[in-house]
Amino acid sequence: MTSKPIRHADASEQSLLRIFTVPEDASSTLSIIEQKLSEDLAGFLGNSIAALEKPLSEIETDFQAFQIPSMPRFVSDYTDEIMQNLVAHSVHTSAPSFIGHMTSALPYFVLPLSKMMVGLNQNLVKIETSKAFTPLERQVLGMMHHLIYNQNDHFYQQWMHSANHSLGAFCSGGTVANITALWIARNRVLKADGDFKGVGREGMLKALRHYGYDDLAILVSERGHYSLGKSADLLSIGRDNIISIATDANNKVDVAAMRQAAQKLAKNNIKVMAIVGVAGTTETGNIDPLTELAQLAQELDCHFHVDAAWGGASLLSNKYRHLLTGIELADSVTIDAHKQMYVPMGAGMVLFKDPELAHTIAHHAEYILRVGSKDLGSQTLEGSRPGMAMLVHACLQIIGREGYEILINNSLEKARYFADLIEQHQEFELVTYPELCLLTYRYVPQSVQLKLNQAIADNQVELVTKINGLLDGLTQFIQKHQREQGKSFVSRTRIRPAKYQRQPTTVFRVVLANPLTSHEILAEVLNEQAQIAQLDSEYYPLLIEL
Amino acid sequence: MTSKPIRHADASEQSLLRIFTVPEDASSTLSIIEQKLSEDLAGFLGNSIAALEKPLSEIETDFQAFQIPSMPRFVSDYTDEIMQNLVAHSVHTSAPSFIGHMTSALPYFVLPLSKMMVGLNQNLVKIETSKAFTPLERQVLGMMHHLIYNQNDHFYQQWMHSANHSLGAFCSGGTVANITALWIARNRVLKADGDFKGVGREGMLKALRHYGYDDLAILVSERGHYSLGKSADLLSIGRDNIISIATDANNKVDVAAMRQAAQKLAKNNIKVMAIVGVAGTTETGNIDPLTELAQLAQELDCHFHVDAAWGGASLLSNKYRHLLTGIELADSVTIDAHKQMYVPMGAGMVLFKDPELAHTIAHHAEYILRVGSKDLGSQTLEGSRPGMAMLVHACLQIIGREGYEILINNSLEKARYFADLIEQHQEFELVTYPELCLLTYRYVPQSVQLKLNQAIADNQVELVTKINGLLDGLTQFIQKHQREQGKSFVSRTRIRPAKYQRQPTTVFRVVLANPLTSHEILAEVLNEQAQIAQLDSEYYPLLIEL
Repeated sequence: MTSKPIRHADASEQSLLRIFTVPEDASSTLSIIEQKLSEDLAGFLGNSIAALEKPLSEIETDFQAFQIPSMPRFVSDYTDEIMQNLVAHSVHTSAPSFIGHMTSALPYFVLPLSKMMVGLNQNLVKIETSKAFTPLERQVLGMMHHLIYNQNDHFYQQWMHSANHSLGAFCSGGTVANITALWIARNRVLKADGDFKGVGREGMLKALRHYGYDDLAILVSERGHYSLGKSADLLSIGRDNIISIATDANNKVDVAAMRQAAQKLAKNNIKVMAIVGVAGTTETGNIDPLTELAQLAQELDCHFHVDAAWGGASLLSNKYRHLLTGIELADSVTIDAHKQMYVPMGAGMVLFKDPELAHTIAHHAEYILRVGSKDLGSQTLEGSRPGMAMLVHACLQIIGREGYEILINNSLEKARYFADLIEQHQEFELVTYPELCLLTYRYVPQSVQLKLNQAIADNQVELVTKINGLLDGLTQFIQKHQREQGKSFVSRTRIRPAKYQRQPTTVFRVVLANPLTSHEILAEVLNEQAQIAQLDSEYYPLLIEL
Repeated sequence: MTSKPIRHADASEQSLLRIFTVPEDASSTLSIIEQKLSEDLAGFLGNSIAALEKPLSEIETDFQAFQIPSMPRFVSDYTDEIMQNLVAHSVHTSAPSFIGHMTSALPYFVLPLSKMMVGLNQNLVKIETSKAFTPLERQVLGMMHHLIYNQNDHFYQQWMHSANHSLGAFCSGGTVANITALWIARNRVLKADGDFKGVGREGMLKALRHYGYDDLAILVSERGHYSLGKSADLLSIGRDNIISIATDANNKVDVAAMRQAAQKLAKNNIKVMAIVGVAGTTETGNIDPLTELAQLAQELDCHFHVDAAWGGASLLSNKYRHLLTGIELADSVTIDAHKQMYVPMGAGMVLFKDPELAHTIAHHAEYILRVGSKDLGSQTLEGSRPGMAMLVHACLQIIGREGYEILINNSLEKARYFADLIEQHQEFELVTYPELCLLTYRYVPQSVQLKLNQAIADNQVELVTKINGLLDGLTQFIQKHQREQGKSFVSRTRIRPAKYQRQPTTVFRVVLANPLTSHEILAEVLNEQAQIAQLDSEYYPLLIEL
């Protein structure tokens, strides 16, 4: 063997390599910011994020360049710039008064652990680039499986680390988890059979022809998450074949109506491939009657999936897990750890009752995922993935069941407290009572409440519609104005309350997941809303003059 | 309004809340580890990760518990434990001698920035939880779009921040990017038409019936990534309808063979919905003739997607971007920033030539993604997503075109250097010459090379097969043993070289993406392999005795 002389790197290359070899100096801008963040995250966010909202169109002016800059930049210059342009105009999702979405304050320890995860830069698709992270992820899935299905020791000893089995799949989020579950459901109902090699190999047309179905359908409550429609689109089932079933006054699916819908589909030779139970709904937090749905799924011989992306964390509370009774009958369950399990964004999971369930989507490749390997990538929708399971593992160990018991119980009880507060307030109307930690309500001046109730009693449909229309405008105004003031944030949505003949009605939507949200803050949110209402010059005067 | 007395938190709740409010002390175990990691990442990883490989079955014994622990744990205890059980047995993917997969050393600044990203915990699905991160992500997509398509100022001013348009979609990785591209392709070819509402609404059966096709197909090189098969399964096209086209001696797809395949499909009334060009292949790093493929896609009136998950970063090199000529003709392009763009795991992208391309998969929901909003979630496969685009943004700005020019050029030239080293070494055989920074080779004792070449010249098929069979075993032995010794790592795969009558042949696979991999390391990898060969007691003696 002859060897070439080693080429010496030139000056610019040397300075470039420094970003890979020389750490940020402790006195650098980025290090100082990191230090502040480590010492007082809430303070850092509070000081760095601008209180007053800047219009998106103005923010966009800082992100107009479309050419990758030619010259390298100093890290400190870049850091200064994003502190002003990006961080200052990001959203303080962990503020105790940010109660509009499912983000919360995070435990401090996830910050250094996240940094460690990034530094380790494992790729979970295969053992060669993840090693111990593979059994760790399998353990996390095993623990979540046990939380739902509570199988015996032997079960977990046998399957948790088995090469050709999986108790679940770790995903970037609940949407991928739901897609994975319905993908499996579809491939099971149209599985290989005789000469037919299965829908995964031969596609939908041949599959339906082989089985003699005219189409597939999925049954779910009208409150199902929009990711289910996306799944039906992606999986070629068609969004129109998501059969949306009416809910009762408590936003729980009407199982009798679902059974009727199934009968009608059967008459039309359309095979129900899955029933999806919702636990809890994204907009109101209610939980479908899971045991009855499981029974119906059995009658129809179809897959039963539970979308507990949001509500699944409540299984961690011994006091409230009964709310999800029946979930253990599901073939698959979606849970997002980045919601009420206090893990940073990017940690979804789908759990499988039967460790062989994912066989129907297994795939292999020569350079990785060889048959018989324990590579996690052979049974996941995603390919290369980071080691996020480590953060779920950390939260499960450090917070523990006892810690989660307190967090979940407080969260649910805080929602009940807020519901009471709203009901006791003369100018607010509770629209949906919280079953988990989510509720909806709206601001209705007292005089308007009286008129509205009278109009309902008198069955004056036109007047009811008129008042609700004005209230919709007012709710929008309050929500937007409150967000812009930057002190607190609730979200809004449109639901169809039974009380208002299921007319679409705009409501405030509140999620009480943040353990730092105090009773005082909740009272203040209402006070602020009542004050803002009077600033509205469009709907408020018309309502008062009614 | 009456107010309830505020319930005082009890002691265990107070201590629990501390994890959300009180930072890790600077003298804590986790803080000390973080400090080490910040000061010397390579040193930290080198010292923390065990040099010798522990069998997976032993590692698994530390991850057997399947019950979520009941009691909370101290962060320091947990940290001690994972340093021993997890970190020690993770993979040193950033080691300069880890040249088997597409991971590399990372620039230092991504560590504190990742921590900032986690602390901000934005959710990119909607503006309400991401604000300035939304235009930032759009800008990153705009810059990558410009890198590929190089449109004029007006184009980017008009579309980059337009609510109902998108220049691409940010994804957790290349697999989701490829799925997204093919989802769009499928929905375009089976789009709404007259009374037919499109495949996304009505499903595959009705769509094929409406358009009168007997099936759909996707044409791609036999070297296409396994995520394409997964996409075909997921999208109900069927894995068998991925028509695998032979490659030439340089692993580039044979366009004439592809045209013939398309003609045959047309005769059978099967519509080609997409051609996928590979740039470069996962196993050998070669790039398909993209301009010719674009021409064929035009003839067939079908979508042209380029999977440049790996090779796309080479567009950042003015010297080598000509290798990807024709990519600008693609309707969609996949690029992974977590490969040769030096961003941590979890940053894939798909770019769309036409800003209206994603309309066909757009979806909306009441509580978010309202029609006309700029929420990114309305045109992505995933739902809630972290602000990973920030790290791509940082790398683009801090490294800049000039920096990437050096990194990419060095990477490609290092691969050429290594190829020369292999060719000059009497005991190694280069199997595929690097076009990008990826090559394959194997160890073949000199005496065996002579016999093998003679056997090929004499057309002694049986002997060639026998020798290659023994060499496969030896390659496996060397690769496994080298990995276990923990000093360096190359991967292995099976390809079908033209030289060996396209018989599956096991080869070492090397990816030279890490800027810290030196020429000395490369020489040492070969030396170590030559030494390991002689330790083999199964294949090596039989080869020598031939």
